[in-house]
Amino acid sequence: MNTEKIYIFDTTLRDGEQVPGCKLNKDEKIRLALHLEALGVDIIEAGFPISSPGDFDSVESISRVVKETTVCGLTRAVQKDIEVAAEALKHAKRPRIHTGIGSSDNHIKYKFNTTREDILERAVKATVLARNFVPDVEFYAEDAGRADLAFLAKLIEAVINAGATVVNIPDTTGYCLPHQYANKISYLVNNVPNIDKAIISCHCHNDLGLATANSLAGIIAGARQIECTINGIGERAGNTSLEEVVMAIKKHKELNFHTSIQHTKLYEMSREVSETMRMVVQPNKAIVGDNAFAHSSGIHQDGFLKEASTYEVIAPEEVGADTSKIVLTARSGRSALAYRFKKIGYDFDRDQVDALYKKFLEVADSKKEVQDEDLKLMAEEITESIAYKN
Amino acid sequence: MNTEKIYIFDTTLRDGEQVPGCKLNKDEKIRLALHLEALGVDIIEAGFPISSPGDFDSVESISRVVKETTVCGLTRAVQKDIEVAAEALKHAKRPRIHTGIGSSDNHIKYKFNTTREDILERAVKATVLARNFVPDVEFYAEDAGRADLAFLAKLIEAVINAGATVVNIPDTTGYCLPHQYANKISYLVNNVPNIDKAIISCHCHNDLGLATANSLAGIIAGARQIECTINGIGERAGNTSLEEVVMAIKKHKELNFHTSIQHTKLYEMSREVSETMRMVVQPNKAIVGDNAFAHSSGIHQDGFLKEASTYEVIAPEEVGADTSKIVLTARSGRSALAYRFKKIGYDFDRDQVDALYKKFLEVADSKKEVQDEDLKLMAEEITESIAYKN
Repeated sequence: MNTEKIYIFDTTLRDGEQVPGCKLNKDEKIRLALHLEALGVDIIEAGFPISSPGDFDSVESISRVVKETTVCGLTRAVQKDIEVAAEALKHAKRPRIHTGIGSSDNHIKYKFNTTREDILERAVKATVLARNFVPDVEFYAEDAGRADLAFLAKLIEAVINAGATVVNIPDTTGYCLPHQYANKISYLVNNVPNIDKAIISCHCHNDLGLATANSLAGIIAGARQIECTINGIGERAGNTSLEEVVMAIKKHKELNFHTSIQHTKLYEMSREVSETMRMVVQPNKAIVGDNAFAHSSGIHQDGFLKEASTYEVIAPEEVGADTSKIVLTARSGRSALAYRFKKIGYDFDRDQVDALYKKFLEVADSKKEVQDEDLKLMAEEITESIAYKN
Repeated sequence: MNTEKIYIFDTTLRDGEQVPGCKLNKDEKIRLALHLEALGVDIIEAGFPISSPGDFDSVESISRVVKETTVCGLTRAVQKDIEVAAEALKHAKRPRIHTGIGSSDNHIKYKFNTTREDILERAVKATVLARNFVPDVEFYAEDAGRADLAFLAKLIEAVINAGATVVNIPDTTGYCLPHQYANKISYLVNNVPNIDKAIISCHCHNDLGLATANSLAGIIAGARQIECTINGIGERAGNTSLEEVVMAIKKHKELNFHTSIQHTKLYEMSREVSETMRMVVQPNKAIVGDNAFAHSSGIHQDGFLKEASTYEVIAPEEVGADTSKIVLTARSGRSALAYRFKKIGYDFDRDQVDALYKKFLEVADSKKEVQDEDLKLMAEEITESIAYKN
């Protein structure tokens, strides 16, 4: 298969875990890290070592147990952060330090109270220092989504010269529209002379519900790494959902990309993260929600029962979920009703289904979902009346 | 303000309500319809009248109580459906019939087992019949996302000639990427000679997490109506989230669009739909999730406390949510800690905060979130030790 690889950088244990209520203990983090490795992610961002002794400990422990996957630790562009991260990562087979600094004028002015020149100098220093410890250094240009493009290009060129192997262009506030995010990536591809020496990474937030679209726009424009989390958890409205970008890449073969993700493990991974972090996945969540493969309207059920592809672009088995559900509600039609009767052992003819359908609608109008027990009662009634007539 | 209006077509009570477990009784539907009118939606799709007596009854009742907003009923391109919908809508001040038929070869072949010519004929007949009853008829070209473009253009031209006032181009299976969906809309704008006589509508599903992006791409390409639901509920992975498209349009002034939505009511509306339908909103849901305005990492909190815009593009007040939250976890820094101490009445100096921060991290590493009670205990300890020293 002659398609380009998109690297999947999972930050469930860092950007995801910093969410209110999601804190994990070390053992839980180790278990999830091993499952992320089995899922096939390329990079696990395991934590932010300087932030607390507990986080340091987790990054160190994950570095010891993960075998092939790159293990990454977050830092600010600060000497102490980088030294501590290097220490936490020292047992990793493939360590990566992720360092960076604000790049928008908003961040430079309000957060750092400094100048563009000073930011550039700190960025280069941090990258050089990190490269003294590890061969793989990712640089993030925080709030790149709102940064001045010419300055951003200059900054990226400088950190690549200083040794950055990956350059992360985050839409920190989740503000960009897809074409705007794509334009930023394209601009860097066309205006950073040494851009071919590094991989461009997309780190998108979901504040306007656009993280998945922005990440896909980013790789179409030339990025080759996506930073994402299981179930899209993360700061505020969360990050790009790993399962959404992976399945969009898989389904849209015309993009000519592939990932190394074992997609049949996606559903199980989603449930495990949700349960471990006590973070609910809404039923209408794409790919992994409880209803993602449920069909309830009559129009849809009729089409789906004739040919699944009429209403389904992903088969639930592809992500390891249960088979598609045909749910009986007041919006269901005769074909779904007959199908469910057949499943529980009754093979009615057309006239019988017509008669049962009227009864069914009365029951359905009075409750949320018609269950097999309700159907059995109806079936017994009609069977008795047939026996009586004969 | 010289911006173009985007019509908001809410289908929470139709596409949303057909979801497993979301069924509402008539009174609940009437209450939500009145709140949708107060929210400022332009069209309420109230139900699918032929589908069941209960649904007919709800559409009729909503038609009686809604004052200015258009009330719409769904039908198939079938005579009986349209007659029944017209009957249900007869008390509506502004009634709309929404009729349509499959337009992709997949649907034409597997669902209808017929030809393109027959589909076109049925579509025209249904539109003409609906226009006999009401002046406002919307036609949906089901599965337009996968339809042949030239046939789709021919179909749309024919139904506009037959009297359709709105033409709905659904991405029924949630398959399109934003640029692909935009290309479809652009093609229709450029290849349907009478397209200026109708409004183009986007009806996108979220199977790949792209419904919001696709709807925005659609209006940028020329559509002027978006079909959406509160919290993005709907068949399978749901529909476009009303709150996401509305706030994206509001925030991106460069698009030159506006809607009539009272955005400060969005949060309350989201909670009401979630509670009435017993359909949970995940904490990381964009705009209306519990964590949408929560800041927990130290880097973010520090920036946010210096200047909110560093990490927030929407102020929670804009959507009627509580003020932004500063949550204390093991990833929080000294500035967030000092801020929270100040809020509960303790004004510590820098050295004191340094001493307290160490203690804080121990507590934070052992639990998910540090509460005010924990802080008070720490504050009392340090205050006592100062008193002792003096």
